[in-house]
Amino acid sequence: MTHGDDEPPRVLHERTLASTRLFRVEGVGLRFANGTEVEFERIAPRGAGAVLVVPLHEDGRVSLVREYAAGTGRYELGLPKGRLEMDEAVLDAANRELREEIGYAAQRLTRLRTLTLAPGYLSHSTHIVLAESLTPDPLPGDEPEALEVVHWPLDALETLLSREDLTEARSIAALFMTRCHVQERDTV
Amino acid sequence: MTHGDDEPPRVLHERTLASTRLFRVEGVGLRFANGTEVEFERIAPRGAGAVLVVPLHEDGRVSLVREYAAGTGRYELGLPKGRLEMDEAVLDAANRELREEIGYAAQRLTRLRTLTLAPGYLSHSTHIVLAESLTPDPLPGDEPEALEVVHWPLDALETLLSREDLTEARSIAALFMTRCHVQERDTV
Repeated sequence: MTHGDDEPPRVLHERTLASTRLFRVEGVGLRFANGTEVEFERIAPRGAGAVLVVPLHEDGRVSLVREYAAGTGRYELGLPKGRLEMDEAVLDAANRELREEIGYAAQRLTRLRTLTLAPGYLSHSTHIVLAESLTPDPLPGDEPEALEVVHWPLDALETLLSREDLTEARSIAALFMTRCHVQERDTV
Repeated sequence: MTHGDDEPPRVLHERTLASTRLFRVEGVGLRFANGTEVEFERIAPRGAGAVLVVPLHEDGRVSLVREYAAGTGRYELGLPKGRLEMDEAVLDAANRELREEIGYAAQRLTRLRTLTLAPGYLSHSTHIVLAESLTPDPLPGDEPEALEVVHWPLDALETLLSREDLTEARSIAALFMTRCHVQERDTV
């Protein structure tokens, strides 16, 4: 059974239910092709989305950062990431986050994919960027405390996954996609 | 440089900034070990988290569903998923979502990992469950329109990734983790 793209639901209304400094909760009224009407809630973050960067060094190691995450209330390991600034291009944002969080700049940046987190209720999207040809070039960041940088061989991704502080779906997906990308490139 | 677990930031306050049917936005005041104080915003979804199920058939195909996603405003492909109901065990929720969304029940359920989406500002967690030994056993679902079910060989994950409607980081991470899990099991 195939459906949908010919007849997506009609948007009946969009209304702001709540608004804070970072988030706006919207109610979206929809009428589906079969006549069903429903109001969904979704979160529209402020801003233009985020970048998540895979810093891949010449020796095959990737750099991750370990920082306190206020959402889960514990220290989490993940790839460097951050919000796009106003009018900032994706690759510029990737290089800025890289310099701020691990102190390296990349000569070679490749967009791998744009990911969503929970498309049913978050409009947020994250651009995944592979960063290579890395040279030291730090920028001061805006973190409340210094980040811990962790280097790990991309070949040893399975053992990295055994760490309990690596939980973020975006980072795990990006690491696997990077390994696929590099393997495909190396076999051409 | 290692930090953190010995001296995590102290929680100065937690306050509700906004509240809707599905979401509560919290402000969390933190004092880090270096003395820096900051208030973060985070979203605490109602309920006990979610399950995301990888239905793996005997012929090596996985089942995904394609449905309208109100957050992004388009049809999205992803693995079957849903919220845990009150007091519901993770594996029970996985089997229920499986029956509702693809019409199969699993005799064999394995928890692979618990993922977060954006641990910096979402407290949400998703339990990834591998479902095998599948037999037809549908339950009526609560979707506003019928779901399209898409079957895909797990071996052909790279070509699945070429589909533009597969964007969800959780689903992509879960598919790669499943392939690792199955490969490791088969080589033992």
